[in-house]
Formats: sequence, structure tokens, C-alpha cells
Amino acid sequence: MDWRNYSEQELPPVLAAALACFVEQGYHGTTIREVAGRAGLSVPGIYHHYSSKHALLEGIVQRAMTDLYQRSEAALAEAGPGVEERFRLLIECLVLFHAHRSEHAFIAASEIRSLQDDARAAHIAARDRQQLLLTGVVNDGVSAGVFATPYPAESARAVITMCTGVAQWYRSAGELSPEDLAARYVVITRAAMGS
Amino acid sequence: MDWRNYSEQELPPVLAAALACFVEQGYHGTTIREVAGRAGLSVPGIYHHYSSKHALLEGIVQRAMTDLYQRSEAALAEAGPGVEERFRLLIECLVLFHAHRSEHAFIAASEIRSLQDDARAAHIAARDRQQLLLTGVVNDGVSAGVFATPYPAESARAVITMCTGVAQWYRSAGELSPEDLAARYVVITRAAMGS
Repeated sequence: MDWRNYSEQELPPVLAAALACFVEQGYHGTTIREVAGRAGLSVPGIYHHYSSKHALLEGIVQRAMTDLYQRSEAALAEAGPGVEERFRLLIECLVLFHAHRSEHAFIAASEIRSLQDDARAAHIAARDRQQLLLTGVVNDGVSAGVFATPYPAESARAVITMCTGVAQWYRSAGELSPEDLAARYVVITRAAMGS
Repeated sequence: MDWRNYSEQELPPVLAAALACFVEQGYHGTTIREVAGRAGLSVPGIYHHYSSKHALLEGIVQRAMTDLYQRSEAALAEAGPGVEERFRLLIECLVLFHAHRSEHAFIAASEIRSLQDDARAAHIAARDRQQLLLTGVVNDGVSAGVFATPYPAESARAVITMCTGVAQWYRSAGELSPEDLAARYVVITRAAMGS
């Protein structure tokens, strides 16, 4: 997998239509009819693929988490065993994802509250698994004496929110490309770790 | 103003009821009837104070931005002229606010999209004014040679999202008090600046 490549659309048309509606009006403010209209389908046409509005949100959130995790694993595989390179590529991966997929990531983060029961539990497990990748690298770096931060847990959390926060403000019309932004965030986050 | 004191409720009852509804169901998913029910008022009783659901959101967002700005100015006044102390107290102020007022800050950030026209413009102006406080301190620190970051603009932005991100995950049941968290964030953000 080329974890730096975002040239392909990641969502099937129905989910892409639902995402656009959720971005504009929120999950609770969106009707299946609006999703159908935007997707160019009938309401039964939507229900043929997704049993409910909740299933649409679940599909959107699930794909975001799976995509990010697979890219992160590919980045770490490319990095090899060195902790500094692992940190560097993982930050690059996080920033690229949250800049290229800012709307998708924004909904996955802000509509967690709208996920029910099993879907919510599954999302939290996926998020924890994702966060463990970075906390693992940070802890390895502290053990190896590469990172001097006295607060590994809070530093890792702070760096994660710094990177996921990109989805809140980054728009492709920004001055920096996602790639340039990622390179700068590598410098800033390494400094935050006391590297 | 005691910018570290969060013992008082900041919202009048009607806005507090609206905030609770928006947190649970989003702005678009909330009806005036639900807000009235939670506030223990009739629907006309709500309209007596607020002309629309939008006016409720506007009131919530406006108060968050005003409260944070007044606290930030008080923190900077306490800090005096030294750039390191200004940075330190401003970070403390940002973290305390986003930990103590996490729900309020979460809605102010995630429902900007739901603000219309003038209210949206006013919010963006308030947010820019707020961000200028930190970018000003960072630029002063870089000029004075106190901060070594090669990317002042991105570092300031990253630090702001790090602090505002606290509202997304901090719950009072967390292990660290807002005060302890703020102290750790001062260390982490100073490192991020290359201090």
C-alpha cells in the first residue's frame, strides 16, 4: 500500500453523499431523503445498501479508521526498526491523512457521540488501537533516550490532537501543501518530544 | 478577573439547556421544544428571550469566545512583559479553559458551520483575535531569540490545536486535574517552540 497516495476517492458514492450531508448539517440534522437526493438514488435505493442512517455513519467512521490504520502500519513498515524514523513517518502519515481527508476525519471525530452501542464500542477500540501506535513509538523513544520529555503520555496525546486538529482547519486552498505541512509538523512534534 | 477560577456556572439556564441538547444531538438535531423541556420552560418562554434556535447557538458561541478572551487578557496582564512568562500563562489559561469548559468549547468549535452570516463572521473575527494573542507571543519569542522554532506560524497553530483539542477528550473523571494538565502542557508546548 502506498500510504502517501491520496489520489483515489476513498468512499463509495452513497457514503460520499452521506458524508457531504453530515458535514453541512450534522448527523442528526440529515435525513435519508437528503442523502438519497444527493446520491441520485431513491430512498429505497439507499436502504437497499444501508439499513439505516446510522449504518451510513458507521460505514463512514469505520472506513476512516481502517484507512488511517492501514496507512500507519505501512508507514511504520517503511520506517523499519529505528525509533526516530518510526516517529517521523508516523507523524507524516497522520498529517497527510488529516489534511487530505479533512472532512472525513472531522465527521469521524465530531460524530462519535452519535454512534450507538456496538458501533461506538468498535470505534473506540479502533481509536485506541490507532493511538497505541504513536504511544508505542513515544515510549520506545523515551526508553531509548531519544526523547527527553518528562511526560510521555501527555506528550503523545498532545501530538495526536495536534495532528488530528489539522482536519479542523486545513483546507486545500491553504498556503502549504499537505506534504509541506507534514514536513513542518515532523519538526514541531519532534521538538515537543524533547528530541 | 480571576482567570483561573471556574467555580461559577458561566451560562444562564436557557443557554445551559441548549448547550446540553447540542452536545447530545448536535445543533441541527435539536428542536426548540427539547430545549424548552430541559430548561423547564414553555416554547414561547424560550422565544421571549431568544428569537430562534440560531440565537441560542450564537449566544453560546459568543460567550465562550468572550470568556476565553477576557481570561487570556487577564493572564497576560498578570504575566507582565517577559515573553516566557506570557507564553506560560497563556498556555495555562488555554488548557484550563478547554478542560473546565470542555463541552462548551467543543460545541463552539464543532458547530461553527451552523452559524449564519453575521454570526459566523463575528465568530471568525473573535477566533482570529484570540489566536493573535498566541501568535503575537510566539513571534515576540522568536524575535527575542527565546524560541528557536523555524516555523513560528505552524508552531503557534499546532500549539493552539493542541490546547483546544483538550476539549475533545478531557473529562473531569480523568486522572489529571485541569491544573496538573495545564502545567504539563506548558512544558510540552515550550519544548515544541524550541525553548
